[in-house]
Amino acid sequence: MADGEQIARLAKLIRYFILISTTEAGSGHPTSSLSATDVMTCLLFGGTFRFDVDHPEHPNNDRLVFSKGHASPLLYALWAAAGKVSEEELMTLRTFGSPLEGHSTPAFRYADAATGSLGQGLSIGLGMALNAKYIDKLPYRTYVLLGDSEMAEGSQWEALQIAAYYKLDNLVGIIDGNRLGQRGETMYGHDMAAYERRVSAFGWETMMVDGHNIDDILDAYAKSANSTDRPVMIIAKTIKGKGVSFIEDKDGWHGKALDKGQLKQALAELGDVDKSLRGEIASPENLRLTAQQSQPAQKILYLADKPVATRKAYGNALARLFPKFPDMVVLDGEVSNSTHSDVFKERYPERFFEMYIAEQNMAGAALGLSSRGKVPFVSTFSAFLTRAFDQIRMSQYSGSNIKFCGSHAGVSIGQDGPSQMGLEDIAMFRTLLDSIVLYPSDAVSTEKIVEEAAKKKGIVYIRTTRKETPIIYKANEEFPIGGSKVLKQSDRDVAAVIAAGITLHEALAAYEELKKEGIFIRVVDFYSIKPADKETLRKAAHVSQAFITVEDHFAAGGIGETVRSLMADVDVPVHSLCVQKMPKSGTPEELLDYEEISKGAIIRKVKELI
Amino acid sequence: MADGEQIARLAKLIRYFILISTTEAGSGHPTSSLSATDVMTCLLFGGTFRFDVDHPEHPNNDRLVFSKGHASPLLYALWAAAGKVSEEELMTLRTFGSPLEGHSTPAFRYADAATGSLGQGLSIGLGMALNAKYIDKLPYRTYVLLGDSEMAEGSQWEALQIAAYYKLDNLVGIIDGNRLGQRGETMYGHDMAAYERRVSAFGWETMMVDGHNIDDILDAYAKSANSTDRPVMIIAKTIKGKGVSFIEDKDGWHGKALDKGQLKQALAELGDVDKSLRGEIASPENLRLTAQQSQPAQKILYLADKPVATRKAYGNALARLFPKFPDMVVLDGEVSNSTHSDVFKERYPERFFEMYIAEQNMAGAALGLSSRGKVPFVSTFSAFLTRAFDQIRMSQYSGSNIKFCGSHAGVSIGQDGPSQMGLEDIAMFRTLLDSIVLYPSDAVSTEKIVEEAAKKKGIVYIRTTRKETPIIYKANEEFPIGGSKVLKQSDRDVAAVIAAGITLHEALAAYEELKKEGIFIRVVDFYSIKPADKETLRKAAHVSQAFITVEDHFAAGGIGETVRSLMADVDVPVHSLCVQKMPKSGTPEELLDYEEISKGAIIRKVKELI
Repeated sequence: MADGEQIARLAKLIRYFILISTTEAGSGHPTSSLSATDVMTCLLFGGTFRFDVDHPEHPNNDRLVFSKGHASPLLYALWAAAGKVSEEELMTLRTFGSPLEGHSTPAFRYADAATGSLGQGLSIGLGMALNAKYIDKLPYRTYVLLGDSEMAEGSQWEALQIAAYYKLDNLVGIIDGNRLGQRGETMYGHDMAAYERRVSAFGWETMMVDGHNIDDILDAYAKSANSTDRPVMIIAKTIKGKGVSFIEDKDGWHGKALDKGQLKQALAELGDVDKSLRGEIASPENLRLTAQQSQPAQKILYLADKPVATRKAYGNALARLFPKFPDMVVLDGEVSNSTHSDVFKERYPERFFEMYIAEQNMAGAALGLSSRGKVPFVSTFSAFLTRAFDQIRMSQYSGSNIKFCGSHAGVSIGQDGPSQMGLEDIAMFRTLLDSIVLYPSDAVSTEKIVEEAAKKKGIVYIRTTRKETPIIYKANEEFPIGGSKVLKQSDRDVAAVIAAGITLHEALAAYEELKKEGIFIRVVDFYSIKPADKETLRKAAHVSQAFITVEDHFAAGGIGETVRSLMADVDVPVHSLCVQKMPKSGTPEELLDYEEISKGAIIRKVKELI
Repeated sequence: MADGEQIARLAKLIRYFILISTTEAGSGHPTSSLSATDVMTCLLFGGTFRFDVDHPEHPNNDRLVFSKGHASPLLYALWAAAGKVSEEELMTLRTFGSPLEGHSTPAFRYADAATGSLGQGLSIGLGMALNAKYIDKLPYRTYVLLGDSEMAEGSQWEALQIAAYYKLDNLVGIIDGNRLGQRGETMYGHDMAAYERRVSAFGWETMMVDGHNIDDILDAYAKSANSTDRPVMIIAKTIKGKGVSFIEDKDGWHGKALDKGQLKQALAELGDVDKSLRGEIASPENLRLTAQQSQPAQKILYLADKPVATRKAYGNALARLFPKFPDMVVLDGEVSNSTHSDVFKERYPERFFEMYIAEQNMAGAALGLSSRGKVPFVSTFSAFLTRAFDQIRMSQYSGSNIKFCGSHAGVSIGQDGPSQMGLEDIAMFRTLLDSIVLYPSDAVSTEKIVEEAAKKKGIVYIRTTRKETPIIYKANEEFPIGGSKVLKQSDRDVAAVIAAGITLHEALAAYEELKKEGIFIRVVDFYSIKPADKETLRKAAHVSQAFITVEDHFAAGGIGETVRSLMADVDVPVHSLCVQKMPKSGTPEELLDYEEISKGAIIRKVKELI
């Protein structure tokens, strides 16, 4: 491994790479990269970090997450110094089609996750460290580079507390304390002790270092590798723009590249750079995992006459399916007795992680687990998944494979009132680019849908209901993603009622009532909201004069709008019954009526149309 | 004021109220209410809390926020003990139409904000305390009851750090340390010192008390009123279910009411309760504010030939409009030099609050300010507002009056890449029940739209663009909420192109190009996305064969779906051009082309249709 002097030479080379690539791009964050250059050079080339550079997928590679994703020029420069990115490639920074994006994403093969929305990397690292310590039981360590500004994000403190709780001595954070945020000084400036007090109060081992003193830094990394039962935070006092005197520690230099004249001046200051120098990264132990064998899942068994809540079936499904999908991991936000992920927890406690009431960190940790090949199922009330929207949004840029389950959807939860009602969750998950949104209505369809979710790579959202609902499907019914079920139909249908979850049962009840009066409606179980079954709806449009969508969700971004988008080129009016009045406490029945998404409301709407 | 013995009698009465009301409701959280009964009884009736019970709107009343909103039976019982809620009313708890909702909302006149999504109350209290100390300069104090479980939420630590930063010695938190969460023990159980270490490391004065020792508690409140420059946290060790032996400190009793038999047993244990007893709350000093006089705003001045970014115009508008709307307060998440709220900050630094990179707390603080009659304008990148979705969602249940501005919308930000691109923000804000969503395209319309937002009570979202755009409107043009502008029209229009923000300029460029070929399109500036101008679209549908919506946003929940919903009963096909491929770094022009939302894409689509 490189000694102090060699590291200094490598750091100089890396500074050179940072400067030339950002000036070529005409934008980017050289100053935020320069401050962390010495700590990161020491990490990668000082012998602590172990990584098979030719096999980034090696399961025992140490992990490196740049939580301060805007320091991507440093990330790319480090791997250039390791001989894995050419100077020519570096010069494509931030250009269209280059894997070297403005904020690093997995388009770059040495980045596991997209970062750039601050305060998310520590949670991602936590997921990787959980995986190492408790699941794969591999000795790899996870390193997370943190900005000082982003320590203001609450998600950091969620991750800090949970990492300490799980005694993640294989997780090391490095705070790049360069004093300056985007528009001026951070809350604590260069008072590194302020971070030290807070982080150590949260149960971490802390080490304060001069972030430009190579011996200091190497020493801290060596010590960090010996921590027992506690994660380690290296708090480095650094200078933003370090190495280029006229931008060092200066306001107004965040996110700005040097122009060509300034670059010339900066390179002159930097002095001789050995462009042929390359650093060596230590190798990991060649430990590999024995892949768990998939076993057939048990059969689904529900009594036709015994109603079961879909949230309960969700828990049953997790427990039933684990043998078939041995990469599953289940996380819950301290409500497992409500989401019923507790069914899984009781059966497979070693694969269940209590994440407490900290949804942002839970979503971030799931991304970390997903990046290590696991299939995380993440549950809380659907309302509270909104807490993690930024993490969920970001995970779409990491090619993640996370299954979210939101329970207690809609006003039908009843007495607890609006704070606990998920009424925006369909809109939230639908708006993601490649998401899948599923909404089962009975226990059988829930079991099948959870299985579909486990099989399908990507972000899948499953919406469950608090109250018990009748079993309407036989155990051999299949629920492919993108499908739907026509439960009632005739050639005299005056309207097609498109519903899912709780409102499907209202639609079926309306059907029975209307039939007595000789009025026929088509009833469609729209369990796959995204992608949706356009074909079935098209056929329904040929027969029915109108569509009525019914959903326990607000109007915008929900099922009504989904169907209108699907039918944009078909001439069928789509009437939407949805939550349109300020919700409140009451019985489920009162609230379904009040919001006009009940059996009665459907009947009224149908009669209004004929 | 009540002495210790009287407080004990009042606490007994309050426990009685909690027990009978929850049993009558058949649900609710008696155990979580009982644990905090003594600390809250001491607060309200021990002389520290000052509140004119007949005038909840009094500007100098102390504020009380139940961050643990599920302890609402205690809140209602406290006000019953103060003589402001009758026993009969208490028995309507959780029933349809009762102001006594499952989790308290402002339907109850002594609650300023809806709570129940945990970890939000401290931020709300922080907003109220900021208002007292820095804006209204009134001596009222703000008290926030916190659950121990909810201390796991990162948002709490955001609030803790910002409250210390702003030296809010008028803010007092009370942690109800009852050891038990919903499904079992909290992370720290009864280790109250764990909270003490963390909270004091964050710069708060801390006091540990036995939460059932009335003298201890009264003493702590008396001391808390004398804190200087530091907020105070009273950390109370309590027993969940305190007062009823068979539910005290027991697992499995979260969120469960006693049945009638259990109630009888509990009341027998409680012993004699003086139902006629009522407690007295101290009065506040009768200090009132002199309302600031509204002054006319200066005129808008932009040069017709000088492009200006709408984000810049947003900042200009804030500064221009403050004299006219003296209740305005501006908050920003450490990006004021990007959102350009810095224009306001430079002009009116006393009304600008730097909230650092902690968006959840920023949104919560805005709610607190809003509840104190201020009009907060809250800005960050549109992408990062997703971080506060839960707080934003909850604020709709508090009758809040908050204006959110999200800058850097869409792929047109360019090189920084997807992490910084707001592509879900329209969907997020639209899905709220009564929200308003506005999207200006030039500096003039931005100025007018900010003014409309300031005038309109409620949640308003304003979406701004990073890059400069030409001035297309005269300074006297008006932009009412719910309106739109037809910028190009003829009786030969083959399609109506509906766009807003950056894509409106693409549509105008497409118009010019197509005109040369004798093809005419209608161009509509759809600046008011919600509510939207149905009338204008209907008229356009009479003339045009098709609608083409163009937006720098993902498909679901965006402008395309808005228009489809508006036109659900009109037979016009709506084609949507929107962001449909995974976004990446590149120039704005490359990305608009890549996503097919550019001038070229519009022209292609129009030609495809004719």
